[in-house]
Amino acid sequence: MATSDKVNLADKLGLLDRPYTPGIVGYMNDYKLVVVRAKGEFVWHKHDDTDDFFLVLRGRLTIQLRDRDVELGEGELFVVPRGVEHCPKADTEAHVLLIEPRGTVNTGDAGGELTADEAEI
Amino acid sequence: MATSDKVNLADKLGLLDRPYTPGIVGYMNDYKLVVVRAKGEFVWHKHDDTDDFFLVLRGRLTIQLRDRDVELGEGELFVVPRGVEHCPKADTEAHVLLIEPRGTVNTGDAGGELTADEAEI
Repeated sequence: MATSDKVNLADKLGLLDRPYTPGIVGYMNDYKLVVVRAKGEFVWHKHDDTDDFFLVLRGRLTIQLRDRDVELGEGELFVVPRGVEHCPKADTEAHVLLIEPRGTVNTGDAGGELTADEAEI
Repeated sequence: MATSDKVNLADKLGLLDRPYTPGIVGYMNDYKLVVVRAKGEFVWHKHDDTDDFFLVLRGRLTIQLRDRDVELGEGELFVVPRGVEHCPKADTEAHVLLIEPRGTVNTGDAGGELTADEAEI
């Protein structure tokens, strides 16, 4: 990945072949820029050491928190504070930009079968 | 600003009354999430201590580098590496999401009349 290239997010999302498999499209300092196709329910988890940035690029994404749902449409972002349990859910497919420190595990403290390696696309 | 609220970027951009006046819409860890309306040419500058994240939400933005131009359309992002001189330019208005460490000065090392205080909107 040439760090000097621009990134077309829709093009990158077209390279992902299944939901909830994140693809790293770039870096900013010690953060990774990640796109993901969300469809269905992810897994309840939290990140004790970092906030978690979500920006919906297409579709609609629900970020379930223990006390409420945050409903995001296109062009809406939400930052899940560190330590707060959350579970993304999309009834129809949503395209999402995530920003997290490098090394952050997508399933946080939960682990399980949806845990993905860090992969550049 | 309630950190627990979602942010509609278009709504926030509607609160800005002139180009190149940045508005902080949220935070992620020690980073600020900023929207700005770009129109015309900004100022040549660099940030020696941080990369600089640009995502075009609407319109087109040219990030001039000393050796080339990076042309960004909607849904395209570019990270200017730390220490690299750049000068954003928009022939017609563009709406942009910026992400930078808190305390980063918008005009970097250049200063001048376009230097803006950090203001939440």
